[in-house]
Amino acid sequence: MEDNAVVSSAPKHPPTIYDVAQAAGVSKSLVSLVLRGSPHVSEARRTAVLQAMARLDYRPSHAAAALAGATTRTIGVVLDDFRNLWFVSLLQGLQEGLAPHGFRIAVSDHTLNAHVEASPLDGFLAMRVDGLVVATEPTEAMRVPAGLPVVVAGNRQGTVPGADVVAADDRHGARLATEHLLELGHRRIGHLTGSGGAARLRAEGFRDALDRADLPSPVARGHGGTTEQDGYAAASRILDDGPATTAVLAANDTMAMGALAAAGERGLRVPEDLSVVGYDDSPMAATHLLRLTSVDGRNAEVGATAAELLMSRATEPDRAARRTLLSPALVVRASSAPPRPA
Amino acid sequence: MEDNAVVSSAPKHPPTIYDVAQAAGVSKSLVSLVLRGSPHVSEARRTAVLQAMARLDYRPSHAAAALAGATTRTIGVVLDDFRNLWFVSLLQGLQEGLAPHGFRIAVSDHTLNAHVEASPLDGFLAMRVDGLVVATEPTEAMRVPAGLPVVVAGNRQGTVPGADVVAADDRHGARLATEHLLELGHRRIGHLTGSGGAARLRAEGFRDALDRADLPSPVARGHGGTTEQDGYAAASRILDDGPATTAVLAANDTMAMGALAAAGERGLRVPEDLSVVGYDDSPMAATHLLRLTSVDGRNAEVGATAAELLMSRATEPDRAARRTLLSPALVVRASSAPPRPA
Repeated sequence: MEDNAVVSSAPKHPPTIYDVAQAAGVSKSLVSLVLRGSPHVSEARRTAVLQAMARLDYRPSHAAAALAGATTRTIGVVLDDFRNLWFVSLLQGLQEGLAPHGFRIAVSDHTLNAHVEASPLDGFLAMRVDGLVVATEPTEAMRVPAGLPVVVAGNRQGTVPGADVVAADDRHGARLATEHLLELGHRRIGHLTGSGGAARLRAEGFRDALDRADLPSPVARGHGGTTEQDGYAAASRILDDGPATTAVLAANDTMAMGALAAAGERGLRVPEDLSVVGYDDSPMAATHLLRLTSVDGRNAEVGATAAELLMSRATEPDRAARRTLLSPALVVRASSAPPRPA
Repeated sequence: MEDNAVVSSAPKHPPTIYDVAQAAGVSKSLVSLVLRGSPHVSEARRTAVLQAMARLDYRPSHAAAALAGATTRTIGVVLDDFRNLWFVSLLQGLQEGLAPHGFRIAVSDHTLNAHVEASPLDGFLAMRVDGLVVATEPTEAMRVPAGLPVVVAGNRQGTVPGADVVAADDRHGARLATEHLLELGHRRIGHLTGSGGAARLRAEGFRDALDRADLPSPVARGHGGTTEQDGYAAASRILDDGPATTAVLAANDTMAMGALAAAGERGLRVPEDLSVVGYDDSPMAATHLLRLTSVDGRNAEVGATAAELLMSRATEPDRAARRTLLSPALVVRASSAPPRPA
């Protein structure tokens, strides 16, 4: 429809924060607190304010403009695949970091929009977002207007010009996971390699640990996949080769699911016959069904740091781009244990 | 930042479709085909056009404005929980339906934005989307400007004024799944009830089938959850009650995962000792690990139909709201089988 179809829908005189305060029977400063997502507001008063906003058709975007000259008070996040749940805690951390500033989040899976976009950022640029989080591999086509805050989240091949970067140390995380398996006594360890910059670093960390242990070159298969099917196929090849592999490290939790399936089909119990370790500590890893030992890539903190970096651009528009590297942590669950005595 | 910070980033004279065609060495009509996501373009020529667009910093939004006076050429989709993967095929179907029209998709999980929004639609309204898909329970606060196409996708409690609705017949789908278990010979069947309008209809369909079979009132537990933990807790209660339940229908695939875990912890094999049926036929159901019998809620077609309804508003702005109901289909996998002979 026409631009003015939307514009005309707004009241001739958009309601102000004072109108909302009056309608809700609270102070203007309390309305501001609600807009900023402050935890220091009772549920009852928060509800009263939100209901008043709805009644008056008051849009946070009006407030946004008033508060900071922002265009939409929205941060756009570009992901690569909604099916791999690693991003859930990143969005949670981002939301918590943005809440005090009253910004919201919109997400796109750029594979969904590839048919219409030269760059997966274009949609959000057209929507006049106030900042971008790139949580997928940057491409040459990713151009950003001068002054628009951009953060590349996670270890990627290449970056976006002028963007800050926040990531966890994937190489270190994979080394931690592999050392965990070595300490349990495993000596034949396979790696289900993934695709992308993070996966490459994870494969390097896996090799680091085996080199330090002076083990023969590891079984590593996967051919750059990311899905449960990829993990299933790679683990099947490893398990059907002799001598017996007693543990596998997957490049992500989704591929680890495939390894659990491949083991089950061969009558191998996890962890008695095969230890399986994932990566990302996604919601999948914590399920009762998987109880998967995994590497916490600190995605909640990656998201929270991305929020800080985006917000700090408002006060330091010309600062140099920053790179923040966080240390991952191993989360031991039921899918890893010592190998059977030979 | 200021609105003009973004605007000024665009070339003084935005590149036209002709500039792109010239730079890519193709015809203007071929560029249009690429913009519309036509399948009838070779990968090589499509790449050439996309690269030319990137070089010239040509934004599809410019094209959108030229093509149809659209504001952002974007459809906003509001979901309730990124962790439940039922929406993946809905987005796929929506994308395929929008591609010929050159529209992109942006998604938000309204629980992420509740801190800043009176209504989960506000963000997309501020971003001037050209249409909305509401794939969560509508709330009173959901107000939409006159003339903005809105589709409520899935069976919801309540709707959005003026919105079209497209859903699958959840009551019928749950009856199909329950009849499948009855035909296999199960007589003690539990239902892990979910939350929301769709889940309520699924519980009714479950009861319909048991009533027709003249069975005693079914074991139904779940207390309105949606997560794997909810399914695990509900299935645990059912399995720890006697007499032995031999099959469970979960309100969604995520809850079914919890049922598989509860069975495993009790040494019950699926399907030999317990049949488990999910709902949504999400990517999770098709994994090698779950091989879950599930109900295909036709989410791809729900998405494709939502796209048609949104696009048809452009030609019929004043037509009455439509309600489309699709018939679900049972997808039988390895998690359901006849019960052991008593």
